[in-house]
Amino acid sequence: MMQPPLSDLQPGQVLARGTARALASLGFDSLPEMVLRPRLRADLMAVGRKGEIWIVECKSSRSDFQSDRKWQGYLEWCDRYFWAVDADFPTELLPEETGLFIADGYGAEMIREAPLSQLAPARRKALTLDFARAAARRLHRLCDPGLAGEAGAPGAF
Amino acid sequence: MMQPPLSDLQPGQVLARGTARALASLGFDSLPEMVLRPRLRADLMAVGRKGEIWIVECKSSRSDFQSDRKWQGYLEWCDRYFWAVDADFPTELLPEETGLFIADGYGAEMIREAPLSQLAPARRKALTLDFARAAARRLHRLCDPGLAGEAGAPGAF
Repeated sequence: MMQPPLSDLQPGQVLARGTARALASLGFDSLPEMVLRPRLRADLMAVGRKGEIWIVECKSSRSDFQSDRKWQGYLEWCDRYFWAVDADFPTELLPEETGLFIADGYGAEMIREAPLSQLAPARRKALTLDFARAAARRLHRLCDPGLAGEAGAPGAF
Repeated sequence: MMQPPLSDLQPGQVLARGTARALASLGFDSLPEMVLRPRLRADLMAVGRKGEIWIVECKSSRSDFQSDRKWQGYLEWCDRYFWAVDADFPTELLPEETGLFIADGYGAEMIREAPLSQLAPARRKALTLDFARAAARRLHRLCDPGLAGEAGAPGAF
């Protein structure tokens, strides 16, 4: 229904779509393009049944990965940090102390679990609230385009 | 775009749509038809900037209100409890110790603030997590109908 064809998505969004499906099957509800703080946006932020917070960054190519020098900045915003790349990606580039999904537009498989580095309770609480409000706001904008306020980026795949 | 015409909505959903807009203008992000526990579903659950949780029940008529004997059951699931009714509703029926919105399909006005009865931290935490995951899941289903799993009720207005 609202799903854009895969060909309309950026390569990173294709990976995000498949990875979000895999996260759902693992019991994690995710939100794409979640702003963690000004100028730091996660490709996918996911929340588990017990409130676990995972972040997944999607890298479509070697150059996409190499141009990004900020990935360590995500570690303090999640319990576990993952990459999602496609089957052709040179995974030897990726740091070992991170998790890994191999993804396409239809699904993903977790190849390596990420190490656990638990968030402090106050940050988890604040992040969960931000996620809750962002998700509800996007849904609301999508379901009621008559809603006043700035135009929303629903972050649809 | 996805907005059904008002004529396709149930009377309670019309009130919910307008009230959700008013809540947004008050800084509250809301989710319609939020399941709090088995057999207890809020017409609107809303979360504020500081994590405040409000519940709004929408009543389209005297009989709709009188057939509902469970409203006190909502009090333990929110910091403030409100009704939303239309301008013709006999508001003298409503208990005084509750908040009140007068709504239509396009907006709502808060006529009476609800008394504050603060949630215990553990329940607030659990409710916020449930809200976060429910909102993200509905958004995901809406944006990616190819997502596996049970058919979702996006709870769109």
